[in-house]
Amino acid sequence: MGGKGDKMKKCYFDHAATDPLHPAVFEAMLPYFKEEFGNALSVYDLGTRARNAIEDARQEVAALINAKPSGIIFTSGGVEANNTALRGIALANQAKGKHIIVSKAEHHSILNSARFLEKSGFVVTYLPVDKYGLVDPEAVASSITKETVLISVTHASREIGTIEPIQAIAAIAKERKIVFHADAVSTTGNIPVDVDELGVDLLSMTAHQFYGPKGVGALYVREGMRLVPLIYGGIQEGGRRAGTENVADIVGMGKAAALARTEMTSRMEHCIKMRNTLIEGVLKIPRVYLTGHPEKRLPNHASFVVEYIEGEAMLLMLSMKGIYAASGSACSSKALKSSPVLMSLGIPSALAQGSIVFTLGTDNSEEDVAYFLNEFPVIIKRLREMSPFAQGWGDEGQGEKCYVGG
Amino acid sequence: MGGKGDKMKKCYFDHAATDPLHPAVFEAMLPYFKEEFGNALSVYDLGTRARNAIEDARQEVAALINAKPSGIIFTSGGVEANNTALRGIALANQAKGKHIIVSKAEHHSILNSARFLEKSGFVVTYLPVDKYGLVDPEAVASSITKETVLISVTHASREIGTIEPIQAIAAIAKERKIVFHADAVSTTGNIPVDVDELGVDLLSMTAHQFYGPKGVGALYVREGMRLVPLIYGGIQEGGRRAGTENVADIVGMGKAAALARTEMTSRMEHCIKMRNTLIEGVLKIPRVYLTGHPEKRLPNHASFVVEYIEGEAMLLMLSMKGIYAASGSACSSKALKSSPVLMSLGIPSALAQGSIVFTLGTDNSEEDVAYFLNEFPVIIKRLREMSPFAQGWGDEGQGEKCYVGG
Repeated sequence: MGGKGDKMKKCYFDHAATDPLHPAVFEAMLPYFKEEFGNALSVYDLGTRARNAIEDARQEVAALINAKPSGIIFTSGGVEANNTALRGIALANQAKGKHIIVSKAEHHSILNSARFLEKSGFVVTYLPVDKYGLVDPEAVASSITKETVLISVTHASREIGTIEPIQAIAAIAKERKIVFHADAVSTTGNIPVDVDELGVDLLSMTAHQFYGPKGVGALYVREGMRLVPLIYGGIQEGGRRAGTENVADIVGMGKAAALARTEMTSRMEHCIKMRNTLIEGVLKIPRVYLTGHPEKRLPNHASFVVEYIEGEAMLLMLSMKGIYAASGSACSSKALKSSPVLMSLGIPSALAQGSIVFTLGTDNSEEDVAYFLNEFPVIIKRLREMSPFAQGWGDEGQGEKCYVGG
Repeated sequence: MGGKGDKMKKCYFDHAATDPLHPAVFEAMLPYFKEEFGNALSVYDLGTRARNAIEDARQEVAALINAKPSGIIFTSGGVEANNTALRGIALANQAKGKHIIVSKAEHHSILNSARFLEKSGFVVTYLPVDKYGLVDPEAVASSITKETVLISVTHASREIGTIEPIQAIAAIAKERKIVFHADAVSTTGNIPVDVDELGVDLLSMTAHQFYGPKGVGALYVREGMRLVPLIYGGIQEGGRRAGTENVADIVGMGKAAALARTEMTSRMEHCIKMRNTLIEGVLKIPRVYLTGHPEKRLPNHASFVVEYIEGEAMLLMLSMKGIYAASGSACSSKALKSSPVLMSLGIPSALAQGSIVFTLGTDNSEEDVAYFLNEFPVIIKRLREMSPFAQGWGDEGQGEKCYVGG
């Protein structure tokens, strides 16, 4: 990576953007870049082996979420899965009604799909969230109309880490016979996800959020659910998602799912410990506030807003110290707009600009966190010294356990 | 691959299903499975290097088709590119009119996208083709109405190899100010494709058709063209295709494009020579007919219909000799329906069942073709002996240079 003999510490704290690829996952993919290059639809042995490899991967992915393998549709990622779920269910059910419900804390792929549906004549309810980012199941219940055909709520926000009460919302949807989709891109492979226990009808996931490759994800669809495909063509994925299968990446997702299943508990324990140390340390800095729920949050997720500083500036200074973080979701980090998720918490726009997110992983250690906790206060102090807004206040105000939005 | 010490010859003649991955392409991808695992939207160096790698790949892909890099949208493959083109242009222009024109020789991804648009209120003209599979530019001209917003014709059919008169059709579209899309999945990287020379507004391609990885393709879109995205989410690909970028596969596509550009002439020469030998040899077998155009065809493509025999049976027998071929496009080979492309040539349904396609590549040699030409007549003879339909005719009838449908 360049630098003349410098051995700067590297702390990758941006696992929400992407995980590194697990070496065992890469090993599993390797043959499909070499001798096993067949098209999975070809009828000879080379094709059959590719087909079998895909079906093995499907079983592993299904097992990770306690689903039937036939319910797994491989996609090019979580974003495609979310698009397929929203538009596929909406179009399949538009004769019944043209109303859908999503939360305000959704990922862009959900919000922008909802906006597309609005242009096609659907009515969308955007559910508010509380100051922790939690959706109120009662609000879901009272938003339902006779026209409602789909409810979609994220399992956990990538930006604030809050884990939503999916079970309660799914129960309401089931009682009212409305299809329920959960965007579980940030949870699948990281915390237990059981489609039956959660009660979801559809669930989106992506491999690179659990140490698998980029470019592959999946949509779980409960048996008997009608779905209009997003991508038309051949008979791949049971006619529900066309296109020559990305065999190597699908195999990688299967292997990553198998590893996530066996290592989940230890990975969670590893992350929770570091995350708690990190949150505790950061909240000692004055005028820094935790965003998202203090307990109901992803085990690897620590997110904050920092008064008087822009997220981008912190990222830059941190990266100069070898610390990699994000100021929001990767998909919006370059858009330079205030995050709609943070706004939905009631955080003022100016403060939302000071958003910073740290997401930990198996490759991080307690020493990484200690190194970071040593550097971060210095960076904030330096940036505040340069900020015209930071003048005129003392250091006496301590960080709050959780940001209370105005 | 198993077999106890057997050294059966392997002849992979199914490059239309997929090419093997070029070793140099794999080498180029390798770092992005390892230390360069960053999300291309992340603002720190790891993200910037991923971003730069994608932009380098974009330049290579653009150079391959003489386009501006800004006109390249990376997708998960050719099928997604085709879906994006058809629906993206149709939706962007529906206020102008709701009529589109496609040929009957299109890939499923075009035909099924057209059917989806029909359900959304569009009118679709399916252009007939002649016995060689050629679209008549005059027929295109006379199909245009005041409502026409899009014409889409394949550059070359994967099933019959016929290269369409894209230039002439594009000129008509341009004159009538109608957007023109070419599905160039089977041509890009294999024969010269120049978007300006062809005169296309949009063009679909996929990496695994020119020794790149599966799971990545691109849609070229001429500057200033309005397009409704197929996949909504973040700001990737200029807001025209959301989803975390599949960095490794995109880098692979770039490298494959660079190699295709420099090696195209030698690859073509290599394939044409073998293909001619193969066609000549196969047509010596009685009652075997070439499908597609005898001259205006892909350099690596030889396709036939064989009387009294089913394609699947030939494939099975050939694979037992280590020879891999297809009986149609990979996307339809398991659907067990008569190919719509062959039907559009006027080939009777029974004869279309005897379809077989050989597509050659850089990994094939003259010896492969000689080996095949030795085995194939024996296989056909054996199958015909088992066929109830093949009784009662002699061996005197010679194969025709080209099948005359009807």
